[in-house]
Amino acid sequence: MSEAGFALDPRLAADTRPVASLPLCDVLLMNDARYPWLILVPRRAGLVEIADLRDDEQAMLWQEVNRAAAALRAVAPCDKLNLGALGNIVRQLHVHVVARREGDAAWPGPVWGNGSAEPYPEAARMSLVGKLQASLSSR
Amino acid sequence: MSEAGFALDPRLAADTRPVASLPLCDVLLMNDARYPWLILVPRRAGLVEIADLRDDEQAMLWQEVNRAAAALRAVAPCDKLNLGALGNIVRQLHVHVVARREGDAAWPGPVWGNGSAEPYPEAARMSLVGKLQASLSSR
Repeated sequence: MSEAGFALDPRLAADTRPVASLPLCDVLLMNDARYPWLILVPRRAGLVEIADLRDDEQAMLWQEVNRAAAALRAVAPCDKLNLGALGNIVRQLHVHVVARREGDAAWPGPVWGNGSAEPYPEAARMSLVGKLQASLSSR
Repeated sequence: MSEAGFALDPRLAADTRPVASLPLCDVLLMNDARYPWLILVPRRAGLVEIADLRDDEQAMLWQEVNRAAAALRAVAPCDKLNLGALGNIVRQLHVHVVARREGDAAWPGPVWGNGSAEPYPEAARMSLVGKLQASLSSR
């Protein structure tokens, strides 16, 4: 498989800001200040389920999810990481990595479908993206 | 690591019925007839996050999640699989694999935290567990 034909789903593009490009996945920051929240999207066209990836690419996906989770946790200390691959609304394969804190806006429920996103002020978002980029490149 | 000291969290035990024991994980059926829903629990004591597993065991976890997802999908055709590792309420590491159908009780939202479980009638549950066991052992 190659990146040919891949284009980020427009709803994911609208809800996020780019952070980094790993060997398989683009790493995006959800533009929702309620939760530190990354989304990883493999740059492969036409994927819906994890099983649509080749076995070696699945292994790479989970390695990149781990790397993103560690980078997120270093920047945004949390009580629990939440991982999810749902895709009920946006079918393009993507994996959520969310840093959850006890008492956050959805705690202890899931973040998906809970209220409306609260966009970051621009300066705060740029600062967070910078920290995440540094954290990702150090591991 | 070994299985020494592992015991299934009592809330997971109360909410599920055993289906199979794979090399790393126990596979459990959520006792909720609203959604065909498996939970995989690595038989390792003291795990909370995916990253608490050794790298080779993480790879095995995702292989077993794939196998369970394929077995579930064969028995309960669906529109989308949902994978999740949350652990906000039950901290013992466990991975959800849920067969989602458009129009199901929580669609398109997540199943977690949505209403109350509707236990299977016993005969239906035993039949489903039998089909899942056969489907798992064939792959």
